[in-house]
Amino acid sequence: MTYNQLVKQIFKKRSYLCVGLDTDIEKMPKHLRKEPDAIFKFNKKIIDATKDYCVAYKINTAFYEAEGLKGWKAMEKTLNYIPSTHFTIADAKRGDIGNTSSQYAKAFFKNMNFDSITIAPYMGEDSIRPFLEYKNKWAIILGLTSNKGANDFEMQKLSSGGHLYEKVLGECSKWGSKENMMFVVGATQASELSNIRKTLPDNFLLIPGVGAQGGSLEEVSKYGMTKDCGLLVNVSRAIIYASGKEDFADKAAEMAMQYQDEMSSLLV
Amino acid sequence: MTYNQLVKQIFKKRSYLCVGLDTDIEKMPKHLRKEPDAIFKFNKKIIDATKDYCVAYKINTAFYEAEGLKGWKAMEKTLNYIPSTHFTIADAKRGDIGNTSSQYAKAFFKNMNFDSITIAPYMGEDSIRPFLEYKNKWAIILGLTSNKGANDFEMQKLSSGGHLYEKVLGECSKWGSKENMMFVVGATQASELSNIRKTLPDNFLLIPGVGAQGGSLEEVSKYGMTKDCGLLVNVSRAIIYASGKEDFADKAAEMAMQYQDEMSSLLV
Repeated sequence: MTYNQLVKQIFKKRSYLCVGLDTDIEKMPKHLRKEPDAIFKFNKKIIDATKDYCVAYKINTAFYEAEGLKGWKAMEKTLNYIPSTHFTIADAKRGDIGNTSSQYAKAFFKNMNFDSITIAPYMGEDSIRPFLEYKNKWAIILGLTSNKGANDFEMQKLSSGGHLYEKVLGECSKWGSKENMMFVVGATQASELSNIRKTLPDNFLLIPGVGAQGGSLEEVSKYGMTKDCGLLVNVSRAIIYASGKEDFADKAAEMAMQYQDEMSSLLV
Repeated sequence: MTYNQLVKQIFKKRSYLCVGLDTDIEKMPKHLRKEPDAIFKFNKKIIDATKDYCVAYKINTAFYEAEGLKGWKAMEKTLNYIPSTHFTIADAKRGDIGNTSSQYAKAFFKNMNFDSITIAPYMGEDSIRPFLEYKNKWAIILGLTSNKGANDFEMQKLSSGGHLYEKVLGECSKWGSKENMMFVVGATQASELSNIRKTLPDNFLLIPGVGAQGGSLEEVSKYGMTKDCGLLVNVSRAIIYASGKEDFADKAAEMAMQYQDEMSSLLV
């Protein structure tokens, strides 16, 4: 998916919601858990229920890998079920030396057809480049994450000035463009967003941490939004586990609609 | 596998060689490529040929993920084929917020039975902790990697003193012990090893970059070895692709034996 296509979807739907499919069999409604293909069945119902209110789906690969072959298969089926109108994210936090990152790019962009993948930037430029070689595919680089551990390294001050995460944003943004690179900035870090927009005036930001992790949609939008929106706000648990009962899809739709409604009012 | 078991194997075999199974169908001998289950068949022959000369196998997950379901299956079969005398490494470079890292730990330690997994430390403590909760399992944290991109962030100087990678080594080593935590230090960074041993006198180091990437086994051993050896030196391409013909397993054995022979003379 291209930058323009994504922006068009956002303004058409008045939504910049990304639904996170962190699908955990143990948190699924009980009546589904024992079914064959339970992960895909759950995801299918969530997608059917939420697709009108969101513009993107983020598949958290860990939850699928944890189920082994069965999980990997469910990931592929889920990806193939997502409508082509929606931006797809492999939340996989990959990154390795060049020849290995090329294999990850092949896995997620060629073998599967994800629009994008999240990348841990620790190993630097040659670990990221292979993901940028695919046309209309995106690298989504970890910038400042939503977890407590962000303080351990990302927030370290560099002797050349600024924090590590700012260096990451600044350097990586030179290797790509707003057409093929996004950055992860946690919603719990909303106060840093105005500052981040000085370095990244145009790139899309993928914002996790609204919902279960406690970030504020209003603040994130206030400090992070660009004229093209420039935000994908991810909500996982607060939508997909809105109810643990048979009405889970209806409740997921309600929650997604609430977010869409708030986003519509916040959108420029 | 425990620390003591690993050390025992090293001194028994007079080897601290880890063979890296970066198995790429396109680099395999031609006669194997079209066979069903080619990846596993290749790995099986490599393991049979090298197991007497090495103490560990490192499976680079990217190469398996690139083949989709078939690749994931080949990874599981390969892992199950490795003798229990050998330390197994999922070279997966994972790491995410706590609840997601828990899923990765489940994938690699419970669903599969790897002894260890490599971890990208960018997201800090809570992204690493879940891997330390499994008994006799190991987290192998990226410290200073062997690639050019190591200069981009890992080598950044911090205002509190030292480089980012030193901060990573120092902080992470507080969260685990020599019994459950190793660090990746590239062989191309041998000159940094004496310095690293000041921070990490006891932890095992996983050393990639000998062979195709040009690092020196002698230098690495000179500057990095402890009384318990404390090193696992990984060689991937230089062993598994020593020959692209039908004699690939014999040539792999020869190469592994050469490394073992040199290691035997370098071992304390």
